[in-house]
Amino acid sequence: MIKGALIFAQSGGPTAVINASACGVIQEALKQDCITDVFAARYGIDGVLNEDFIDMRKVPKKEIELLRITPASAFGSCRHKLPPLESNEYEYKRLLEIFKQYNVRYFIYNGGNDSMDTCNKIAKYMLSNNYECYVVGVPKTIDNDLMCTDHCPGFPSAAKYVATSCHEIALDTAVYRNGRVTIVEIMGRDAGWLTAAASLATAHGQGPDLIYLPEHPFNIDKFAKESKYILESKGHCLVALSEGIKNSDGLYISSLSLNNSVDSFHHLQLGGVANFLAIRLTNAYGIKTRAVELSLSQRCAGHLTSKTDTDEAYLAGVKAVQCAVTGLTNRMVIFNRVSNNPYEIEITTADLDGIANAVKELPEHFINSEGNFVTQAYLDYVTPLIQGENTIPYENGMPRYSKLNPKYKTK
Amino acid sequence: MIKGALIFAQSGGPTAVINASACGVIQEALKQDCITDVFAARYGIDGVLNEDFIDMRKVPKKEIELLRITPASAFGSCRHKLPPLESNEYEYKRLLEIFKQYNVRYFIYNGGNDSMDTCNKIAKYMLSNNYECYVVGVPKTIDNDLMCTDHCPGFPSAAKYVATSCHEIALDTAVYRNGRVTIVEIMGRDAGWLTAAASLATAHGQGPDLIYLPEHPFNIDKFAKESKYILESKGHCLVALSEGIKNSDGLYISSLSLNNSVDSFHHLQLGGVANFLAIRLTNAYGIKTRAVELSLSQRCAGHLTSKTDTDEAYLAGVKAVQCAVTGLTNRMVIFNRVSNNPYEIEITTADLDGIANAVKELPEHFINSEGNFVTQAYLDYVTPLIQGENTIPYENGMPRYSKLNPKYKTK
Repeated sequence: MIKGALIFAQSGGPTAVINASACGVIQEALKQDCITDVFAARYGIDGVLNEDFIDMRKVPKKEIELLRITPASAFGSCRHKLPPLESNEYEYKRLLEIFKQYNVRYFIYNGGNDSMDTCNKIAKYMLSNNYECYVVGVPKTIDNDLMCTDHCPGFPSAAKYVATSCHEIALDTAVYRNGRVTIVEIMGRDAGWLTAAASLATAHGQGPDLIYLPEHPFNIDKFAKESKYILESKGHCLVALSEGIKNSDGLYISSLSLNNSVDSFHHLQLGGVANFLAIRLTNAYGIKTRAVELSLSQRCAGHLTSKTDTDEAYLAGVKAVQCAVTGLTNRMVIFNRVSNNPYEIEITTADLDGIANAVKELPEHFINSEGNFVTQAYLDYVTPLIQGENTIPYENGMPRYSKLNPKYKTK
Repeated sequence: MIKGALIFAQSGGPTAVINASACGVIQEALKQDCITDVFAARYGIDGVLNEDFIDMRKVPKKEIELLRITPASAFGSCRHKLPPLESNEYEYKRLLEIFKQYNVRYFIYNGGNDSMDTCNKIAKYMLSNNYECYVVGVPKTIDNDLMCTDHCPGFPSAAKYVATSCHEIALDTAVYRNGRVTIVEIMGRDAGWLTAAASLATAHGQGPDLIYLPEHPFNIDKFAKESKYILESKGHCLVALSEGIKNSDGLYISSLSLNNSVDSFHHLQLGGVANFLAIRLTNAYGIKTRAVELSLSQRCAGHLTSKTDTDEAYLAGVKAVQCAVTGLTNRMVIFNRVSNNPYEIEITTADLDGIANAVKELPEHFINSEGNFVTQAYLDYVTPLIQGENTIPYENGMPRYSKLNPKYKTK
């Protein structure tokens, strides 16, 4: 294969295992004879455009190995999307210039939907300019909404965190004889994969009584009736719902909340959809409520991850490098599920053209007919993904994550 | 010692280790010859008044042992406070009746401030009625605000959770080159012990830049200035603050938020003080913000606890039984710190008269002069408490906590 440098970059929102993929990419790249330098760009594609690189040969092996269990994007991220080539070629030309300058022949981009779009555009641009460069994407998203793959690295660990936290919150909110309706808000604007994982707590013995997902129209009165019924019969009711639940007109419930508040307070925003619904239930139905937002921890809780996920994320990084050095380009690493019991996946790649900018929603048969819980089929899908725990090294009572010093920069 | 039954009950808000104390009480009580029966009341003192008991001799030993790592109050809790004896003797008489009926000679109550008040009242009532009964309190509170003890079981695990989560959130919120002011709201209405623990993340390498506590008057303009300065120099700013921060008039900042909203929306509540301040910073100063509430997980995250805390909570339960069977009453188990390095405590007891209804605030020398961070003295105090991790058994990818079946009830 052609000799040259490899650039790796991370993009989009962090996950608890995105650095496990980084670890796989870097360790594999350092082994490959055809790869002369291994650079990690800081802040995603922005770092490439700014020549802001960390020279991975300078980083101590221990810190690279610790990336395997370190949450959030260790090299920084960005939300920058390359413009359509037709409208603005400037950044593409700049990328090609930089790739030539550093003799970059391998480019690995780790991210979600938008990042795969960027990856796709770069691959095509290099091809059409006859610059030999192998471009492979590594998926990551806690939303699990990328096409063509059984699941995305990052989702299983977020699912394990959500399930465990919901189980613990279920124990916590059941302690009083006369409890409340507790509403837990979970990430996922357009797909309910992660919120659905709260059902694992229920299957485990104690968890949400009701689950509402963006894929099924949400009706506030129906919700009030369902939660009130459970509160009255059990003494407490736990609800898990996606930040992205929508009414039958397709409007986000959170935007109704926003409209309500903007009427009176310029710019004021309420806490979120769980808070909005908690207030609504109390005011309109006299129900005692509490809103809980799992917030950032669901995507960055490195202390509670799925070993299955960490291992797969690592192998996805390894696979990306292996594909690139065997001459594949414009591909994304994907997982095919070979069997469910015992759980087995095949790690392969798919054409980026069919992935970029599409969203994979939760299929209908994963949601019950009432639209207020998941089905056994979903549980069968998700259960293997949360198996296994990582051994996290602790130092002075805290997780010891990788530390990357700016002195490792190329310039 | 007099032969008789022991009743144990839990009260107040749950913690991650309250059941470790339960485990200590129950396992020690089952060993004592003078203790004929071991009953756990369901829903605190309410369960005693309702004769709602679990017979611990019927519970499988494995489930009792699992209590050691199970979060939240496994036997249920209550917020019921006994009325002053002078105003209403009914409940006291009823308790005495029930104690006589079951021949209860040992009563162990596990809770925070209000629960120690209840414990105190029961001990005195039994004494003044010449009914031989040994009453001992076991402290628990994530707020760490009980008098006479170096610290309270429950606080160290909450501190470890808060510190780890703030460290992870610090990693997560630093990934973009141009970030925001992220405001993390932590429990503690009257004392800042737990919020202060966020400083452990900073000491560990990455954590809050600013910490605001209820003990120091909070000024919104000063806060805006301080956070804006850090945002502009670092690119992102992480703030940890107590739900109970107050202005210089002693008014909760969260109540200002409430007043603001009640003006226009009857009954409407904003998400919390972090959300209120995030909105204020954006509207008044044009700063990009994000509010995060650690919410219930900080007190019930059994999957991330301090082994020091779990062990001490267990031993506090053991000690309570040992004191009761040696004839002590109207006492609470306390911890005296003998040495800091190596960390060593002495577990002993103190008179309940000096504990009930008082609040221990963070001392002045634990807060810096600017009132926006803690001092090294606080870090020296808290660091030993978060040491050590528990081995949590997992079943099918989820923590396997104790399961108490209603069939173990006495009737």
